[in-house]
Amino acid sequence: MTQMQQALDGAITEVMIEAARHEGVEPELIREGLAAGTLVIPRNNNRDFPARAVGKGTKTKVNANIGTSADHNCPDEELEKLQVCIESGADSVMDLSTGPGARDVLDRILSESPVMVGTVPLYLVMADLMAQNIALREMTGEMLFEEIERQAKAGVDFMTLHCGVCRKTLPFIDESIRTAGIVSRGGSLIRQWMIVNDKENPLYEDYDRLLDIAFEHDVTLSLGDGMRPGGQADSTDRAQLAELMVLGELVERARERGVQVMVEGPGHLPLNHVEANVTLQKQLCKGAPFYVLGPLVTDIAPGYDHIAGAIGGAVAASAGADFLCYVTPAEHLCLPNEQDVRDGVMASRIAAHAADIVKGVAGAAEQDRSMSRARKSFDWESQFDLALDGERARTRRAESESNEEDHCTMCGKLCALRTNRGDNH
Amino acid sequence: MTQMQQALDGAITEVMIEAARHEGVEPELIREGLAAGTLVIPRNNNRDFPARAVGKGTKTKVNANIGTSADHNCPDEELEKLQVCIESGADSVMDLSTGPGARDVLDRILSESPVMVGTVPLYLVMADLMAQNIALREMTGEMLFEEIERQAKAGVDFMTLHCGVCRKTLPFIDESIRTAGIVSRGGSLIRQWMIVNDKENPLYEDYDRLLDIAFEHDVTLSLGDGMRPGGQADSTDRAQLAELMVLGELVERARERGVQVMVEGPGHLPLNHVEANVTLQKQLCKGAPFYVLGPLVTDIAPGYDHIAGAIGGAVAASAGADFLCYVTPAEHLCLPNEQDVRDGVMASRIAAHAADIVKGVAGAAEQDRSMSRARKSFDWESQFDLALDGERARTRRAESESNEEDHCTMCGKLCALRTNRGDNH
Repeated sequence: MTQMQQALDGAITEVMIEAARHEGVEPELIREGLAAGTLVIPRNNNRDFPARAVGKGTKTKVNANIGTSADHNCPDEELEKLQVCIESGADSVMDLSTGPGARDVLDRILSESPVMVGTVPLYLVMADLMAQNIALREMTGEMLFEEIERQAKAGVDFMTLHCGVCRKTLPFIDESIRTAGIVSRGGSLIRQWMIVNDKENPLYEDYDRLLDIAFEHDVTLSLGDGMRPGGQADSTDRAQLAELMVLGELVERARERGVQVMVEGPGHLPLNHVEANVTLQKQLCKGAPFYVLGPLVTDIAPGYDHIAGAIGGAVAASAGADFLCYVTPAEHLCLPNEQDVRDGVMASRIAAHAADIVKGVAGAAEQDRSMSRARKSFDWESQFDLALDGERARTRRAESESNEEDHCTMCGKLCALRTNRGDNH
Repeated sequence: MTQMQQALDGAITEVMIEAARHEGVEPELIREGLAAGTLVIPRNNNRDFPARAVGKGTKTKVNANIGTSADHNCPDEELEKLQVCIESGADSVMDLSTGPGARDVLDRILSESPVMVGTVPLYLVMADLMAQNIALREMTGEMLFEEIERQAKAGVDFMTLHCGVCRKTLPFIDESIRTAGIVSRGGSLIRQWMIVNDKENPLYEDYDRLLDIAFEHDVTLSLGDGMRPGGQADSTDRAQLAELMVLGELVERARERGVQVMVEGPGHLPLNHVEANVTLQKQLCKGAPFYVLGPLVTDIAPGYDHIAGAIGGAVAASAGADFLCYVTPAEHLCLPNEQDVRDGVMASRIAAHAADIVKGVAGAAEQDRSMSRARKSFDWESQFDLALDGERARTRRAESESNEEDHCTMCGKLCALRTNRGDNH
């Protein structure tokens, strides 16, 4: 049984009440959103943690990706990163482990995470195959569904599933004309598998089986964007739109089954394409929550992609995107370390909050007003309390010479706020 | 004689040709923009360095503020920061020194800087008064004009002058109803001086004298926004707009005199106010170049204000702003250090470039296309060459285990681009 089905049946559950309390809204608003499919509460029936809503009328949420790769396979580091995610205020984590032993990493994350946990089940299937030196072409649909079922039983709250790369969309997917090609790991794997085996994508072909599993454990489907653009030049192309159109159909089928569903989006987009992409997703996917990766508004900022992503994320969320997947400074270069994780979460939280002011989310603008009041009254302690990262703000101020005075070292006694109260008369 | 006057006279100067070459546009486009007042070339006749244009049809430029304060007065550090600004790719620096000996710092910066140098002359006047323990009220208009003339002769390329805080606007400036108050140092000082002395702002009253000095040395006026909002709650209020209306009048008077002029803008703005602010400035100030500080799209990100500023800056520049003043992670906390300066410049350059793609600036989108091609072909050296900060990108990759292979440690051999070429078949 799912929260969506209960909402459709008119019930307000404890989970809905908990999510509503966090937002400062009425539980009925959460129930209505769940029933309409404009919001989801990714929370597996087999896990117990504070429920959070993602979607219309709620705070923009932030996801952080962690997980091993075969090239850097240090499970303990990933568990440390999980703690950094939590401390920095991430609303969810995705375990994208693909190194040997990835299954154990997921189990540990599921048992330790106090926030939503997402996965890409295909990755564990591929990790198994790679560990046994078996080629992608040998993968079977059964392997995929067994993994999905295993993870659903283990408590995974949401799963990225690349269902939209299918026979219907393949004719629109011309990898060769793309400047950056296909940059989604899942998308590229499914496409190659389909081509080599000349078969339909099992996730599309047996979508009803997926819905059954999701319904039983209340797994929220996150329909993957395997054709997301990987460079400015590929933004909003035919491959991307063909997939999005299919995702819209699959949203409707999930809703008919009472299964919670959200939709993933780009990627790399010029700044003036961002709003159009949100509009397209909301229209084609009937208002389903939109979960975007970045988007990165330039390709030439490796080392600083958290900033390129914060720009795109703020604009996307202001236009209606609901869930921001962080991008770290390590993107395009290496697996992120703890500092990257912290910086990535903070950048996305800034974007999310900037958008929440625009969205008129309950309490958002008031936080900024309180900060302005604290600044005007030289109340540094309140400033640290109100800051997204009070610890960093406190440390920076403490290091400077005037930390025991009312002003800071930037303007010294020429601080405008001191002048306003007549101190420089 | 000014570049603007020469443009009005129909001449294409060496300075215009140099600025045009940097942009990859025809010199005539630069001449037309200068004559129309939609672009400026801040370059004092008494200084010699590569000329750069700011305004319509040219790349969005980035300014970095450096300078001492009385609380942290280390001139050598500021000269080091100047080098960091140059290495990071800043197009100009403003010396905002206010500590004892500030005049010497400016002289050193003027002699060492290969980029435009801006100042706020009022600061040096105040630094002198503070050093002698003289109150603001004792300042005279003559002191201000003497300082402006001294700096014009010394070679300052552009000067922030708070001319719009005047008797006409004061009735609209109610500091008490603002949540954050007045946060511009210059604006707060001029306002207090006017109130205490019950006099008109000398910069407004004797604006023609200012124009004479600017014309003689070709100093570009940067009309200061003393009433810029210092918090989301004060965005686009009466005080701000009243000042902007006066700045529009002063733009016209500068143009009539053949003096180059740009206009400064916010500050702190909700994301959905940013475009409106650019539209207002462009309309009220007849297309004069717009030089914005940030804008910061949230107030609660101290320690990360370079990111809040990059979001606002990218959106502002996409909407037509021409010149971004950086904000560093130290903003609201302390004087920036070298790392802050580097991070601030890079964040603003990302915003500027993201906007240049939208503006269709010559060559901008091509840089991103080249980066996508380099990624698709696993050409790491080209990626570093194309990156805004290739050094940082190179360092990050070098630290990871797979740095001698084609892929990176994030995805390992599951890299989508490897899958596309069939490596995981």
